Amino acid sequence: MNLYPKPVQALIENFSKLPGIGRKTAERLTLHLLHTKKNDAYTLAESMIALRRNIRLCSHCFALSENSICRICADRSRNGSVICVVENPSDMNAIEKANAFSGLYHVLGGALSPIDGIGPDELRIKELLLRVRQKNIEEVIIATGTNVEGESTASYLADRLNNIKVTRIASGIPIGGDLKFVDQMTMRKAIKGRYGL
Amino acid sequence: MNLYPKPVQALIENFSKLPGIGRKTAERLTLHLLHTKKNDAYTLAESMIALRRNIRLCSHCFALSENSICRICADRSRNGSVICVVENPSDMNAIEKANAFSGLYHVLGGALSPIDGIGPDELRIKELLLRVRQKNIEEVIIATGTNVEGESTASYLADRLNNIKVTRIASGIPIGGDLKFVDQMTMRKAIKGRYGL
Repeated sequence: MNLYPKPVQALIENFSKLPGIGRKTAERLTLHLLHTKKNDAYTLAESMIALRRNIRLCSHCFALSENSICRICADRSRNGSVICVVENPSDMNAIEKANAFSGLYHVLGGALSPIDGIGPDELRIKELLLRVRQKNIEEVIIATGTNVEGESTASYLADRLNNIKVTRIASGIPIGGDLKFVDQMTMRKAIKGRYGL
Repeated sequence: MNLYPKPVQALIENFSKLPGIGRKTAERLTLHLLHTKKNDAYTLAESMIALRRNIRLCSHCFALSENSICRICADRSRNGSVICVVENPSDMNAIEKANAFSGLYHVLGGALSPIDGIGPDELRIKELLLRVRQKNIEEVIIATGTNVEGESTASYLADRLNNIKVTRIASGIPIGGDLKFVDQMTMRKAIKGRYGL
């Protein structure tokens, strides 16, 4: 018998639906919210509602946005002739943080994964091809993940984008990484991708 | 530069305030809530608000409750002459799940911990002593934790409850536990607490 009152049980159950949050963590978070200032719990709840009310996908690149066109697509100072293709908004954020790219993005919404039933139609590939055809795009940089799904998505896209310059972000030893901890696949990529000094 | 729109950043920040939720996890949870059904996010938010609106502490035992008296204190079939003292509502829930206790509870709200500035006045000890004095209590079972803070809270309470039967829950080998993995302190407790067959 679970003796928690219903509102407590309800929140524990709803928390456990989140990925990576088990029953014990859900219980801990719920009891924590009972002990914080009342406002903290309300602020969290309200920011959750605001998220779903105010966030939509950019109609050009499918990034998260408050408006129909995202900040980056609306920014005239960015180079509109290069598109960097990523799987998810978080990848886009990681690239943007590095401050090394000044073009536009295209968020696919995942990577090809036949096992999970994700084929080309489940991703925003049609939209990418249309964008490339309609706009004056000179280069598409494919920045999908370096796992099997990401690599096969990259090959698939390279095949479809056959009359345009298509590049892939480099793989290799992470900066500051100790060579002895680098896995064999990465090491092979690093040797294969060596460049002249 | 963080390129997430403000509502996304706000929820990430509010999630990271929860204990054990770092920035990366907060980001993952936020992006997850953007991809679930809209209703899931609202349900989570609303159950959070309902929690703070509808949950209070039982005026007798300080358990979480929807009413001024909790389900257990209101249950006439329970043995009102035995009080089990626990640190937190989650401990109470763990005992209740085991279905081995039919008396009432008293939630202290923590354990004595001078290092964290938690003395007897920070816990609901006065309220416990008053309850014991006013009601017809025959036994107080102390079920605080088996760590240093829980043990010293138990000794302190035993000192203060000097003209009544005070017991402590047993320590020993967990059922199904392999003896070779049991730590020395627990083993000592198990031998010291041995009973005749």
